[in-house]
Amino acid sequence: MRAYDVILKKRNGEKLSREEIKFMVEGFVRGEIPDYQMAAFLMAIFFRHLDEEETYYLTEVMMRSGEVLDLSEIPGKKVDKHSTGGVGDKTTLVVAPLVASCGVPIAKMSGRALGHTGGTIDKLESIPGFRTELSIDEFVENVKKYGIAIVGQTGNLVPADKKIYALRDATATVDELSLIASSIMSKKLAAGSDAFVLDVKFGTGAFIKDIEESRKLAGLMLEIAKRHGRKAAAVLSNMNQPLGRFIGNSLEVIEAIETLKGRGPEDLVELSITLGALMLELAGVSEFENGKKILKKKIETGEALEKFRVLIKAQGGDERVVDDPWKFLAVSKKIEEFKAERDGYVSFIDTEKVGTASMLLGAGRKKKEDRIDHSVGIVVEKKLGDFVEKGETIARLYVSEKSDLESAMKLLKEAYVVSDTPPEPFRVVEEVIK
Amino acid sequence: MRAYDVILKKRNGEKLSREEIKFMVEGFVRGEIPDYQMAAFLMAIFFRHLDEEETYYLTEVMMRSGEVLDLSEIPGKKVDKHSTGGVGDKTTLVVAPLVASCGVPIAKMSGRALGHTGGTIDKLESIPGFRTELSIDEFVENVKKYGIAIVGQTGNLVPADKKIYALRDATATVDELSLIASSIMSKKLAAGSDAFVLDVKFGTGAFIKDIEESRKLAGLMLEIAKRHGRKAAAVLSNMNQPLGRFIGNSLEVIEAIETLKGRGPEDLVELSITLGALMLELAGVSEFENGKKILKKKIETGEALEKFRVLIKAQGGDERVVDDPWKFLAVSKKIEEFKAERDGYVSFIDTEKVGTASMLLGAGRKKKEDRIDHSVGIVVEKKLGDFVEKGETIARLYVSEKSDLESAMKLLKEAYVVSDTPPEPFRVVEEVIK
Repeated sequence: MRAYDVILKKRNGEKLSREEIKFMVEGFVRGEIPDYQMAAFLMAIFFRHLDEEETYYLTEVMMRSGEVLDLSEIPGKKVDKHSTGGVGDKTTLVVAPLVASCGVPIAKMSGRALGHTGGTIDKLESIPGFRTELSIDEFVENVKKYGIAIVGQTGNLVPADKKIYALRDATATVDELSLIASSIMSKKLAAGSDAFVLDVKFGTGAFIKDIEESRKLAGLMLEIAKRHGRKAAAVLSNMNQPLGRFIGNSLEVIEAIETLKGRGPEDLVELSITLGALMLELAGVSEFENGKKILKKKIETGEALEKFRVLIKAQGGDERVVDDPWKFLAVSKKIEEFKAERDGYVSFIDTEKVGTASMLLGAGRKKKEDRIDHSVGIVVEKKLGDFVEKGETIARLYVSEKSDLESAMKLLKEAYVVSDTPPEPFRVVEEVIK
Repeated sequence: MRAYDVILKKRNGEKLSREEIKFMVEGFVRGEIPDYQMAAFLMAIFFRHLDEEETYYLTEVMMRSGEVLDLSEIPGKKVDKHSTGGVGDKTTLVVAPLVASCGVPIAKMSGRALGHTGGTIDKLESIPGFRTELSIDEFVENVKKYGIAIVGQTGNLVPADKKIYALRDATATVDELSLIASSIMSKKLAAGSDAFVLDVKFGTGAFIKDIEESRKLAGLMLEIAKRHGRKAAAVLSNMNQPLGRFIGNSLEVIEAIETLKGRGPEDLVELSITLGALMLELAGVSEFENGKKILKKKIETGEALEKFRVLIKAQGGDERVVDDPWKFLAVSKKIEEFKAERDGYVSFIDTEKVGTASMLLGAGRKKKEDRIDHSVGIVVEKKLGDFVEKGETIARLYVSEKSDLESAMKLLKEAYVVSDTPPEPFRVVEEVIK
C-alpha cells in the first residue's frame, strides 16, 4: 500500500477501507508517512468527507494509537461528559460533582483553553493547590475512593490525535465533521468510560455556528459510540450568548460554586440539570425526568457542593474556596466597564468575540504555549433580550496590566447589538438526542 | 500575512491576490512555509482551482523564483515549442532542425523521460558523444553560431517549480490544469524565447485523456503567454495511438532522421509540419499555409537534415548517425514479437500502456533516479484501422537482459483491441488554436 494511492482515492471521492485508514494513521504516527502527505490527505477529506463507517474506522484506529484506559476496577457505570466548547461553559464544574453526588463514578479527563473557548483544567487550576496531573493509578484510586476525579489528558492517550490535530490546526482542516467527531470520540473511548453525554454547541460562540451541522456532528458521534458498543446521548445547546454570566478561570469557578449553592443563572442551571439527568439515565440510576428532580434535590441539600469540596481536597486544592470563593480565588481588583452606547434591547451577541475579548485580557490562549492569568475575565451583566439604557454597564472586565484592554473593548463593541426590538426568546437546550 | 489564512481563503473558494500567491510560493521556496502547509494549499487548489488571473500570477511568481534567460543578444525572433508529453513523440527532433533550417533561431530546453512518456534529452543522449549540458554562455553561443541548440533544464531556472512539482507528485495534486499550466509556462518564459508553440496532447497516451480538458489547458497557457506579452499558438494533437511507429531512445532518433530524409510516417510528418509552420508564423517568417510548403521543401532539399547534422556536431555528437542511424546508434539485437491473437481491425490502443511497456523494457523511468537503456524500445507495426491476421506481428520489442519482458507483453495485450469493425478515421492534428 502507498500513501499516494490512498490520498488519490479519497481525493477522487472513493470510500476508504479500514486497512487504508489504518495504514495512513499508523504510518503517520510512526513517522513513515510524512507531514505533507498527511496534510494533503486531510485536505482531501475536508472536500470529500468520510462517511459514518470511515469515521468509525478512523476513530478506532486513532483510539488504538496509544493507551486505552481500563476503568473496570471502579465499581459501577462510569459516565463521561463532553462539550464541543463554548464561552462561559463551566458545566463540568457543576455537573461532575452533581452527578457524582448521586453515586455515579466520574472519571473525567478534560482539556485546556484554546482560542475563544475556555478549558476545565485551567479553571480548576485557578483553585490554589489543585493538581490536575495525576498518575493513572492515582486517578483510578481517587474515583474509587471519592467517586470523582478530574484530570488533564495524559501523555499516552491517543497520540495520533495530538499529531493529526496539530497538522489540521496549521492547514485549515479543523472544521470537518468526520475529523472533529473522530478526534473527540477517540479520546473519549480511550478514557474508558461506559457511556457518554455529548454537549454539542451551536451558535455564535461555538466552533460550529449552524444548528444543522451540530445535529450532524451529534448524530455522527452517537453512531460511533454505538458501533463501539457504548451508550451515548447528546444535547444540542445554544451558544448565541455566553453560558451564565462569568467568563474566565477564577470567575467561572465562582459561578459554578454559586450554582452548586442553588444560586446559579437560569441557563447554566438548565443545561447542567439536563446533561446530568442524561448521565443518570445512561448510568441506569434514574430515567430522565425523574433524574432532573433528583439533581435539583442534590443542590438543595448541599450534597453536590460537598462533593465539589471532596474533589478539591482530594486533588490537593484549598477547600475554603467552596465557602468563600471571592476571597480564596485570585480575582483581579482592577475592573473596567463596557457600557451601552444607546437605549434598547440586546438583540444579538457575537459570542465568539466575547470569548476572544476574555482571551485578550489574559484568560485564554492564542497559541498552545501561552500562559493564562486566572484572575482576569469578563462578567456579563446584560444578555439577549435584556433592556439597557445608554451608559448602563453591559459587562465588567477584570483586567491585569498585561491585558490588551483596547482590543478587548473593541471586540465587545462589535459583539453586542442593541436594537429597538427584543430578539426571539432564548432557549439554551435546543434538543435532546437519545 | 499567514500561510494558514491563504490556505483557508482558497479552501473556501475565494480568489487570491498576487501578493498572497507570491507570499506562498516565495515563502515555500525559502523554506519558511513548511511542506505540509504547501501540500494542503495545493490540494485546496485541486478542488477550488485557480482562475486565469491567479494562474497568471502563479506563473509569474514561479518564473521569477530563479534565473530568467535573456536571449536578446541572439538576433531574430526565438520561437520555442513545448509538448505536454506523449508516446513516440519525437517531434522536437524533427521540428527543431526543420525550423532552424528556415533561419529561425532555436534555443530549446527540453526534459527527460518520466513514466510512460519519453524525453527529448534522453533521446539526444542516445547519439554517441552528444552533450546536453551546456553552460548558458555556450548555449547562447551555439544558437548564435549554428542557429540551433537543445539542452536540458539548467539548475537555476524556476527552482519553485522543481520544489512544488516534487510535492505535487507525492500528494496526488499533479492533474490540476492551473498547476500544469503554470508549471509549463513558468519554465518556458524563464527560458527566454519570444514566442511559443504548444503541442497539447489528449487521448489514451496523454496525461490529459479528455479533449475538452486539453482545450482548456491550451487556452489557459495561451492566455498566460499573452498576459506576459508573448505570442503563442497551440495544437491539440491526438495521442490515441503512438506518434509514428518507433518508441524508445535510439529508435526515435532513427525515425526522426528518416522523417528529415522525407521517409517519415504520415502522422509524425503532419504534426511536425503543423507545429513548424506555426513557429514560422510566430517568427514572422511566413504565414501558416505557406510555411507548410516551405518546410516540406526544406525536407526535400535535405537542408533540414543538414541542420540536424550541424546540431549533433556542435554539441559533440557523432554526426555519422545522420548517414546511417542503424549502424551508429545503439539498438538492441534481441527482438521479441507481439502477435495478434485473432483476425480483425486494430480498433483501440491504450497508448499509455504501450508507453509503460517501453518503460518496462528499460527505455524510460519509473522514478527520476532510474537509468535509461538507449538501445531498447518498441516498434509498432500496426496502428488504428490496420487489419491484422491472427499470428501477425503487431509490434517488435527491442529488449535487453534487464527488460521486464513479461510485464511489457502483458501490457501490450491489454493495450491493443482487435475487432471486426474498423474504428473512426484517425486525425493527428485535431485543432489549431492561434
